[in-house]
Amino acid sequence: MTTRIAIDCMGGDHGPSVTVPAAIQFLAEHAAAHVILVGRDEALRPLLGSHVENPRLRIQHASEVVAMDESPALALRNKKDSSMRVAVNLVKAGEADVCVSAGNTGALMAISRFVLKMLPGIDRPAICAPLPTVNGHTHMLDLGANVDCGPEHLLQFGIMGAMLVSAMEHKERPTVGILNIGEEEIKGNEVVKAAAELLRASDLNFIGNVEGDGIYKGDADVIVCDGFVGNVALKTSEGLAQMLASSLRSEFKRNWLTKIAALIAISVLNNFKRRFDHRRYNGAILLGLKGISVKSHGSADVLAFGNALSRAYDAVENQVLERITGRIAQMASAPVAAVEKV
Amino acid sequence: MTTRIAIDCMGGDHGPSVTVPAAIQFLAEHAAAHVILVGRDEALRPLLGSHVENPRLRIQHASEVVAMDESPALALRNKKDSSMRVAVNLVKAGEADVCVSAGNTGALMAISRFVLKMLPGIDRPAICAPLPTVNGHTHMLDLGANVDCGPEHLLQFGIMGAMLVSAMEHKERPTVGILNIGEEEIKGNEVVKAAAELLRASDLNFIGNVEGDGIYKGDADVIVCDGFVGNVALKTSEGLAQMLASSLRSEFKRNWLTKIAALIAISVLNNFKRRFDHRRYNGAILLGLKGISVKSHGSADVLAFGNALSRAYDAVENQVLERITGRIAQMASAPVAAVEKV
Repeated sequence: MTTRIAIDCMGGDHGPSVTVPAAIQFLAEHAAAHVILVGRDEALRPLLGSHVENPRLRIQHASEVVAMDESPALALRNKKDSSMRVAVNLVKAGEADVCVSAGNTGALMAISRFVLKMLPGIDRPAICAPLPTVNGHTHMLDLGANVDCGPEHLLQFGIMGAMLVSAMEHKERPTVGILNIGEEEIKGNEVVKAAAELLRASDLNFIGNVEGDGIYKGDADVIVCDGFVGNVALKTSEGLAQMLASSLRSEFKRNWLTKIAALIAISVLNNFKRRFDHRRYNGAILLGLKGISVKSHGSADVLAFGNALSRAYDAVENQVLERITGRIAQMASAPVAAVEKV
Repeated sequence: MTTRIAIDCMGGDHGPSVTVPAAIQFLAEHAAAHVILVGRDEALRPLLGSHVENPRLRIQHASEVVAMDESPALALRNKKDSSMRVAVNLVKAGEADVCVSAGNTGALMAISRFVLKMLPGIDRPAICAPLPTVNGHTHMLDLGANVDCGPEHLLQFGIMGAMLVSAMEHKERPTVGILNIGEEEIKGNEVVKAAAELLRASDLNFIGNVEGDGIYKGDADVIVCDGFVGNVALKTSEGLAQMLASSLRSEFKRNWLTKIAALIAISVLNNFKRRFDHRRYNGAILLGLKGISVKSHGSADVLAFGNALSRAYDAVENQVLERITGRIAQMASAPVAAVEKV
């Protein structure tokens, strides 16, 4: 079996200078993979060198590029020949099994939704990504696709997240929690309370509320939340980690004594850095569509973009889409019954 | 001028063993301060030793204690002689200028609201606390008092937060931002969008949206959000910081080589730790009431609880309540006009 990945090579802050080398390296590490490099032929070809002969690689010309700050609606309407649109089209046409883009998240979401269509039984797509925890990692969704969610959407996120983790990590019954706040009187808003009821009534391995600090304690394999809260939690974490890392760096650069200390501690610091390197966690999956799009961080470097490619590859190899589709079909009656109960 | 602080000495995970030593140390450092130690006389007196003679200290007996996991509604209804209730009563009666508790947040909120009453012009109280940033710190509110907020509540939080920072940090026009997510199409939910309009129309120094990572970048002096999102952001940060700290510790403890590296790097690591020590940021202020209650973290130690006492002291010395009351009265017509515009 061959897994074919369509890569939006023009997307992201660095475009082809990152995506093309990452694709070449990815092919070297995945002997069964094929890639379709989508973008301006004249921008991609010179970066390929002798790899242009690689039979597992081809260029698909696309004349336009979606800008990072472009309105998703305009990108969807006007840029029919953008590298992003063409990459998603390749998935729709069955020429690729998955597409990967470091471009504009909103545009990727809008285009994927328009081209691939929603899965029957799923009302809204969700962005799902792994986060490190003290004892491994967890998956959180939605991280920003939907700002106003109803209880049934959060239930659907739970089902999709559980299927993803089950498929990718071979966990039989991954635990599912709902992001909430702890105060007694005000345990969550109405939507979260109702969603918890639905999740409890489902046949998921639902463990109840997870507070913000529970994300990193590894309280659950899957954590569901609406896209507003999920995006705030994710970006807050990024901001805090950046501040702590830069402060640690500057403390070690303060004077020659601290610089010597840094040299001596370098292997420890590098281990620490490696473990929480956000590049290792790059590659968010858009779930809920009749096809898979993977979103890389816009600022991804070659290593990070390569991880997004690997994640896309793993999602296909582990049949994430088939697992979700099967489960949704199978549960088709259950969620409705649960919704009616509330 | 004397500032009098009523201390709920029974609250928190550690009760009098933390609150009483912290109070004694606080008095030693603040020559003009008086404290009223509220709680079971027999539990407090033995811990005072010779300090029982200190004329700036007195014990106010209260026979009951609100448990950390007690329902706020039940605590409010049934525990009329709890240390928390009596401490808040002392503020209401004018015998204390402020009260401090490390007890049950929901109960402190419910009791403070019931006893002190809301300020005219403010619909809901908010919990406000400082957070460290790359270049100083910011204040965020609400951190968990309200889960479902309307736009006008977020406007009120902005006004109260700006007045707090203006009073405590002597900033003429502190910048105010609203916590939001960055995607183009989905820039916030409806409430946040409407709240941003109100804030823009107000005479606050409103700078617009702040994303999650902007909190720690110091994008704004004051960041408003609903209590659900604020609580998630705060606890997520706590969880991440704990995970990173414990991982750094265990990396340095891995073997004798790394232990030597730790010894050499100890002053650097201690500087780093001190700068982001969450105990330094202890003491959240409940704003919007006709009196000030300060909430300490339940797990606070003597240093952390002492910081909450200092924060309460500073709030009184800097006339935070008077500033907020004055501004609300002054702006009484403006917010209404702005609401009508939306």
